[in-house]
Amino acid sequence: DQKGFRVETADKAFKFKLGGRIQLDTNFSANGRDFDPAPTEGFEVRRARLYASGTVWTDFDYKAQFDFAGNKVSIKDLFVKYRGLDWFDVTVGNQKQAISLELQESSNDIVFTERSLVSSLSSQFDRALGVRFSSKAKNWSAQLGAYGAPIAKAGDGGWGISSRATYAPIMTSTHVLHVGGSVGYRGNTSAGTHTNQYRYESTNMSNVYFTNTGSIDNVSGSTLLDIEAAYMYGPFSLQAEYAHNWSARENGLSGVDFGAYYVQGAWTLTGESRRYNGSNGKFGRLHPENPVSWDRGTWGAWELAYRIDGNDLNSGNIVGGEETAMTLALNWYLNTNIRIMADYRYAFDIQDSAVLRNGVNAETGIQQFTVRTQLTF
Amino acid sequence: DQKGFRVETADKAFKFKLGGRIQLDTNFSANGRDFDPAPTEGFEVRRARLYASGTVWTDFDYKAQFDFAGNKVSIKDLFVKYRGLDWFDVTVGNQKQAISLELQESSNDIVFTERSLVSSLSSQFDRALGVRFSSKAKNWSAQLGAYGAPIAKAGDGGWGISSRATYAPIMTSTHVLHVGGSVGYRGNTSAGTHTNQYRYESTNMSNVYFTNTGSIDNVSGSTLLDIEAAYMYGPFSLQAEYAHNWSARENGLSGVDFGAYYVQGAWTLTGESRRYNGSNGKFGRLHPENPVSWDRGTWGAWELAYRIDGNDLNSGNIVGGEETAMTLALNWYLNTNIRIMADYRYAFDIQDSAVLRNGVNAETGIQQFTVRTQLTF
Amino acid sequence: DQKGFRVETADKAFKFKLGGRIQLDTNFSANGRDFDPAPTEGFEVRRARLYASGTVWTDFDYKAQFDFAGNKVSIKDLFVKYRGLDWFDVTVGNQKQAISLELQESSNDIVFTERSLVSSLSSQFDRALGVRFSSKAKNWSAQLGAYGAPIAKAGDGGWGISSRATYAPIMTSTHVLHVGGSVGYRGNTSAGTHTNQYRYESTNMSNVYFTNTGSIDNVSGSTLLDIEAAYMYGPFSLQAEYAHNWSARENGLSGVDFGAYYVQGAWTLTGESRRYNGSNGKFGRLHPENPVSWDRGTWGAWELAYRIDGNDLNSGNIVGGEETAMTLALNWYLNTNIRIMADYRYAFDIQDSAVLRNGVNAETGIQQFTVRTQLTF
Repeated sequence: DQKGFRVETADKAFKFKLGGRIQLDTNFSANGRDFDPAPTEGFEVRRARLYASGTVWTDFDYKAQFDFAGNKVSIKDLFVKYRGLDWFDVTVGNQKQAISLELQESSNDIVFTERSLVSSLSSQFDRALGVRFSSKAKNWSAQLGAYGAPIAKAGDGGWGISSRATYAPIMTSTHVLHVGGSVGYRGNTSAGTHTNQYRYESTNMSNVYFTNTGSIDNVSGSTLLDIEAAYMYGPFSLQAEYAHNWSARENGLSGVDFGAYYVQGAWTLTGESRRYNGSNGKFGRLHPENPVSWDRGTWGAWELAYRIDGNDLNSGNIVGGEETAMTLALNWYLNTNIRIMADYRYAFDIQDSAVLRNGVNAETGIQQFTVRTQLTF
Repeated sequence: DQKGFRVETADKAFKFKLGGRIQLDTNFSANGRDFDPAPTEGFEVRRARLYASGTVWTDFDYKAQFDFAGNKVSIKDLFVKYRGLDWFDVTVGNQKQAISLELQESSNDIVFTERSLVSSLSSQFDRALGVRFSSKAKNWSAQLGAYGAPIAKAGDGGWGISSRATYAPIMTSTHVLHVGGSVGYRGNTSAGTHTNQYRYESTNMSNVYFTNTGSIDNVSGSTLLDIEAAYMYGPFSLQAEYAHNWSARENGLSGVDFGAYYVQGAWTLTGESRRYNGSNGKFGRLHPENPVSWDRGTWGAWELAYRIDGNDLNSGNIVGGEETAMTLALNWYLNTNIRIMADYRYAFDIQDSAVLRNGVNAETGIQQFTVRTQLTF
Repeated sequence: DQKGFRVETADKAFKFKLGGRIQLDTNFSANGRDFDPAPTEGFEVRRARLYASGTVWTDFDYKAQFDFAGNKVSIKDLFVKYRGLDWFDVTVGNQKQAISLELQESSNDIVFTERSLVSSLSSQFDRALGVRFSSKAKNWSAQLGAYGAPIAKAGDGGWGISSRATYAPIMTSTHVLHVGGSVGYRGNTSAGTHTNQYRYESTNMSNVYFTNTGSIDNVSGSTLLDIEAAYMYGPFSLQAEYAHNWSARENGLSGVDFGAYYVQGAWTLTGESRRYNGSNGKFGRLHPENPVSWDRGTWGAWELAYRIDGNDLNSGNIVGGEETAMTLALNWYLNTNIRIMADYRYAFDIQDSAVLRNGVNAETGIQQFTVRTQLTF
């Protein structure tokens, strides 16, 4: 059915699902050739994933998810989860670290094609191998995790701990107030690298990073604090996050700190409300009331969204630059499986960037367009 | 069942299939050591693919197919297709470009282990990210597509348009006359590479290319024209294609043009006819009337096939060489899932090749043997 | 159900199964920093596999299995098997070569996280592309195979033949006596490499090889002889192998020969017996009588195991070193799908190693700990 291929035993002690996602992108820009380096444009497979997930012996879940975009393998979720206790679950394996609303939300669900400038700081807390404890009720969630390195850096990618808590004092299907916060630390190990880097790519394929700290050496570890809030009323929603990173440095170097934020609003032209899950503190994508059908003359759901985001990657002797951008999105939810997204992003205030425009420091960014075709199964 | 694992909802609005193919090759040659370079021989996995495909919400199909041969990932079909309109379908994603009968046919279906010398020109039009419009009826098909780069070259692999049309004035299950043609253009982008290369590997693992233009620089774009025809009467069939490529060059360099052809005949010793699909203009592999069974004493279907193919990659100041070859195939269709193929290929007339035989220009090629075990599920 | 997702037609002529395994490791060592090179420690995905397997047309089996650990593709089992004859089966494709009990057993089933020092010799006979003939009855098995190269070395990885036979004069579900032996030869081809290397990594991620022959050049081929025996009585079992390798060298160099062995004992604290399959001469993992359930207060099966293993990689002018090690394992079988393993390994007698401890030749090895979470589906 619309939730993909699933089977289960009569007693539901054993379940199995096979699924995946296809995300196909086109990127182009209005004034890309003015920049040095010029952005890469064209078509690309943004994500191409298969996964198997299921339940064994009632209390144990698992998921094994692989991405093949760019003809490369990337292990995504790969975990075993124990749900047999009343007061918390334990998840062992490769999983997202417990930080940031936007990071926790699936790329299938976020209302823009790419995460905001907050991800220039939070992406350090993307998936890693570790253990997570999670508690939840209908309208709150709490998670605490300890992690090693991401798979691509296994053996010398450091370690981390993080925790996220969310609460929804208002929670109906059309009216939600969500607040939350998360804090995390990633330490570099003596055997591993002592460098961190924070940056943001203007599109996933552009290879243009207006803000980019470059490699910051002698970093012993970084703390990230992230606060988040969202409010939804019928077809309208607002969502915001602010993240701040403090990186401690060794060998007498003074620490550096960076900040980033976003504020976004969304309006469902066809009236549907976004779907909120209070037990993990995340928004899911729209489910259109009237899926597209030429025969029935129905046209799915349409959504307009606007985001302002900014970051400041200048601190001490690190000049990573500052960026403020706006993104306008028009999203078409053909049905629960298919979404077509059109994003216009304009970085209108850039400081201290290593990217040049017509030979001088870029102060306004590329006006870029992204169109994505997304199907989940 | 024999079509693999498939499930669907009662109203057929949602379908799901998981499948794949296994192609295991052995290559050796009768006189390989006379050549410089000498061909690589041995065993290899030619193709090892998994795919998920299905239908969602009645009108939308998808396919996500991955190849892992050689321990590398290669995204193959990865698309979303809309079938909700009466007069044409739209397919968005990674797919074969609309060129050449032989290229459109699946490697599971072609009667030789490798495509002909026509592919030295047509392979430039193998899968790429793009949009294709296709119309069809019982005995004709028409396709028009616009494409970006192949996934392996995303961002600087140029763009293309192509169109293929086929018609079958005679079309019964045992008697078919098929005619068709296709034309395509691939342009190189200013941001990307301006070089093209055309060549043909004597086997997939040999690393020997008798004909090979090397890198042709300053190519602004290439046009390919391909005409195709086939005739089948009972267990006998004939099939032929001719392709011609014109490449325009920049900076005052004169253009170059190359040609290639094949003519092939097949005879099913056990009497079955090949299966023709008029609505996409392709032949499928034989389905044996009596699948192999030791208990029942049945032996599947047996097919003999012969192909003559040639190309001419000399033009202007480009000396890619000329090659004329013959291939004799004996194919054993054990059942609808399994096929064992034995090919003998001999390139008996080679001109201007960079490959040497006993120290002088190779004029006759390696006599090579390929045995393939193929299973689809 | 507990055997994962499987479907079959009513007549069982067609079957399909999709499955996989997740193995998540943590490695650390008590005294690693004393060594040069120091071992890599941390978390890693040891194995992350998906497979499709099935039966078509009653007599033909297939399996297509892929591993994605370390974000790399590795084709594992990829074969077509014919079971239609009474006296033997034929398997074509990528498969384990017929050598060594320990090598034949699945990583899901062996009682330690890694195979013994015998694998420093036998791993040359891990999976390769080839053809295997296998005969079997209830309590014996015999296999003979001819193979090309492993997929990663297709084209220049040499060739091999090998044969394994096993017999169980005693065979009940709680009482087993198993004896067996195998012999194999791997030849290097003139077109390929003429070098062999034998070594053993202290953990899969450590990058520390106490015994390591380095590259042995001018090797025309290697013969491996392996004898194996096991005895099981109720919850107790003993198992042992001895392997000897003779490598012939060209250009007047005298041959070299190496040996390795292990002896291991296992005791199921909760009373279950290991499962033995006489028709392929392999032990499977424990199936706990009382799977873990917090609600029912049951705790699965617990197993203690101890292994002594050693190798001698010194011969002629090759100084690969000698190693004797012990491994103590505590395994928790939560249910038939999930196993948590804790291994302590100590190499207590090392000679002639290139690894240094505190600047001098290591004579005692790292005391290393491995914890693995394993789930099969």
